[in-house]
Amino acid sequence: MEQKLPTDPYKGVRDFYPADMAIQQYIFDVWSHAAESFGFERYDASILEPSILYKAKGAQNEEMVNDQTYTFVDRGDREVTLRPEMTPSAARMIAGRWRELAPHAPIRWYSMPSLYRYERTQRGRFREHWQLNCDVFGVNDVSIDIEIIALAYHIFKNFGAGDDMFRIHINNRATMDTAYRALGITDSDTIMAITRVNDRKDKITDEEYLSTLALTVGDQSLALEIKRMVETTDGGDNQVVAGLAQLGITNVVLDRSLARGFDYYTGTIFEIKDTSNEGLKTLAGGGRYDNLTALFGSDNVSGIGFGMGDARMQDFLTVHNLLPTDLSTQAEVVVMSFDASFNMEAQKVASVIRTFGKRVATDVSTKRLGDKIGRAVERNVASIVVVGETETASNSYTRKDLATNTETHGTLQELFA
Amino acid sequence: MEQKLPTDPYKGVRDFYPADMAIQQYIFDVWSHAAESFGFERYDASILEPSILYKAKGAQNEEMVNDQTYTFVDRGDREVTLRPEMTPSAARMIAGRWRELAPHAPIRWYSMPSLYRYERTQRGRFREHWQLNCDVFGVNDVSIDIEIIALAYHIFKNFGAGDDMFRIHINNRATMDTAYRALGITDSDTIMAITRVNDRKDKITDEEYLSTLALTVGDQSLALEIKRMVETTDGGDNQVVAGLAQLGITNVVLDRSLARGFDYYTGTIFEIKDTSNEGLKTLAGGGRYDNLTALFGSDNVSGIGFGMGDARMQDFLTVHNLLPTDLSTQAEVVVMSFDASFNMEAQKVASVIRTFGKRVATDVSTKRLGDKIGRAVERNVASIVVVGETETASNSYTRKDLATNTETHGTLQELFA
Repeated sequence: MEQKLPTDPYKGVRDFYPADMAIQQYIFDVWSHAAESFGFERYDASILEPSILYKAKGAQNEEMVNDQTYTFVDRGDREVTLRPEMTPSAARMIAGRWRELAPHAPIRWYSMPSLYRYERTQRGRFREHWQLNCDVFGVNDVSIDIEIIALAYHIFKNFGAGDDMFRIHINNRATMDTAYRALGITDSDTIMAITRVNDRKDKITDEEYLSTLALTVGDQSLALEIKRMVETTDGGDNQVVAGLAQLGITNVVLDRSLARGFDYYTGTIFEIKDTSNEGLKTLAGGGRYDNLTALFGSDNVSGIGFGMGDARMQDFLTVHNLLPTDLSTQAEVVVMSFDASFNMEAQKVASVIRTFGKRVATDVSTKRLGDKIGRAVERNVASIVVVGETETASNSYTRKDLATNTETHGTLQELFA
Repeated sequence: MEQKLPTDPYKGVRDFYPADMAIQQYIFDVWSHAAESFGFERYDASILEPSILYKAKGAQNEEMVNDQTYTFVDRGDREVTLRPEMTPSAARMIAGRWRELAPHAPIRWYSMPSLYRYERTQRGRFREHWQLNCDVFGVNDVSIDIEIIALAYHIFKNFGAGDDMFRIHINNRATMDTAYRALGITDSDTIMAITRVNDRKDKITDEEYLSTLALTVGDQSLALEIKRMVETTDGGDNQVVAGLAQLGITNVVLDRSLARGFDYYTGTIFEIKDTSNEGLKTLAGGGRYDNLTALFGSDNVSGIGFGMGDARMQDFLTVHNLLPTDLSTQAEVVVMSFDASFNMEAQKVASVIRTFGKRVATDVSTKRLGDKIGRAVERNVASIVVVGETETASNSYTRKDLATNTETHGTLQELFA
């Protein structure tokens, strides 16, 4: 061959070998089971979306659309973007069928899409990642805000997490607006600018925070007042915090510095953070938005949703030692030919054992029998059956269970049914 | 808002509303269950691959790479392609770890990737589709060829298909090469050109086939000889056909016109066709390839695999009336607030019923109670519970089963545990 191809994947994405895939599949299974237990139904859309979906005013996160998406022009001159988040696709689909969906509100949808961002790669941040997205459409009631946060909480519990391992941070965009107005700040662009500064509060020093705030509002003492207000943790009046407590969920904190990256939130916003490293590790986040479907000329549909990424979740499970040790779905039984002349007999035996509902592989390789057995032991296969002349002639087989090193003899029916 | 956004998805792709998603999920579940029953382990790679993966000699299907892929240059000047098929990614991953995998051969891997092709849209052909991919690496033995075709067969059986609904077409590239050489055709480019003409045999008339063949080999009588050879159906000597018969699989035909689109096949090739429309509907296809991993500088690893698309599969199941009628995973129980003042009580009740393992949604919308019940009936919800003053005060609830219109009274524990 002229050229040696690299075996690396594209920069910033992951290969999922079977052991990696088993972990991702486990995360997906826990996610979907929890979502369905709350009555959410699964949907999906293509990763290819018209770019205009992310450019419309109200739907946008400027930095992301301009610098961080995969956007290209297709062979038919259409501008296409690999979806960087799922909410715009969900809003598009909801708007497209709102007339038939509306009577059934609250509509609960979940999805586990792959999402794409062109960003600098770092631990837990990939250019392709998967995310659980749960949204409730069509009912703007605080009990729904509480319900969807309870769902996020139960996902962590279903993974085996203790309440001390994660904390739910809650804020409300509308309440914050009122607070800013009470400080004399009424311009919504300024409020949005302050919100963006707050979004980085965890990642910068107090001094940096204060000076950036002062630059944003053009007034040092106003900046101090904002800082003081943002750092108030008195949350006795927050209905969401109170409602979660009624459901027995108490690892919750009112956090007025919580901002969320997206511009489209209008009410409750929340994030779940790993208590082992709260500043950096946001494990899930979401909020209520009221203006997304109107972009499509549909009725305005209130929604609340959250996203939870697979890579961060895997980090969390690893750090807290919550990943089950055996997630493999490999064969329970391996049928080995004694030598190549019995390969087809081994296939026939495997075929019969499968009819008893077992996962069965064959080893018809050219390895010596001893090596075949050795490899099965290495892989923690439960049982093996060797097929050679005696077995084929007698129709009597030996099932060897590798963990206990015990042998049982009989027909396949007797051994596996 | 300035601009009304369209609610249509990008051209040539599908939105999956919950009812559509339930069908796709059903197909995925049958696929993965069958693959795992044969000892295949799931893997995945990114949809983003370096474009060079599809341009290397031996890996290529010229037409596809040049005209039909989504290829673009990323912000870091890397040429990227949305994967149009999975085999090159699998070969890349296998080559990357062959040293540690080799002792465990045969390696059985499956995946259910989304694949991307820029092609004219038509029924059952989308720009984004999903495909079951199963491959066995590292053992070149005819019993493995038979096993993997048996897996494809059992997938159809697991969907409830009768043997009369589909037929397995089998050919062998090496055997065909020998036959061409016997006719005096030794140039491999000419043989590949003939193979490409054969690939379209089903879709053109006999006259067109013959004239294209004559143009290809530059000889009318040689074209006739090729046609006669290709149309021979005598398959008594084909080991794969014979082996499948030993496993009880007999809806099989030796088909010397079978060519397969990809250039990289070297031995057994096969397709599964819908008998209700054999010329057009290939439901699955694959074959043995021997030169893919060598491109990466790895040892040469023999492999055999097949792909099976979700859209074609759904068409097949629909045409043959094999789709189960209720695939929904919606809530089994809907807890309704009597009015908005009981929304939070309804959430608490739902939360308790979930602890008994039920899928539970709440209806805390502003609809009147009668409408809430009506919508639950429309959606075929199994049971409802109404939460109002009496229930909250007494801690006694009524479970109404909608199909039978029966009511049961008691504590939540008594009703749902």
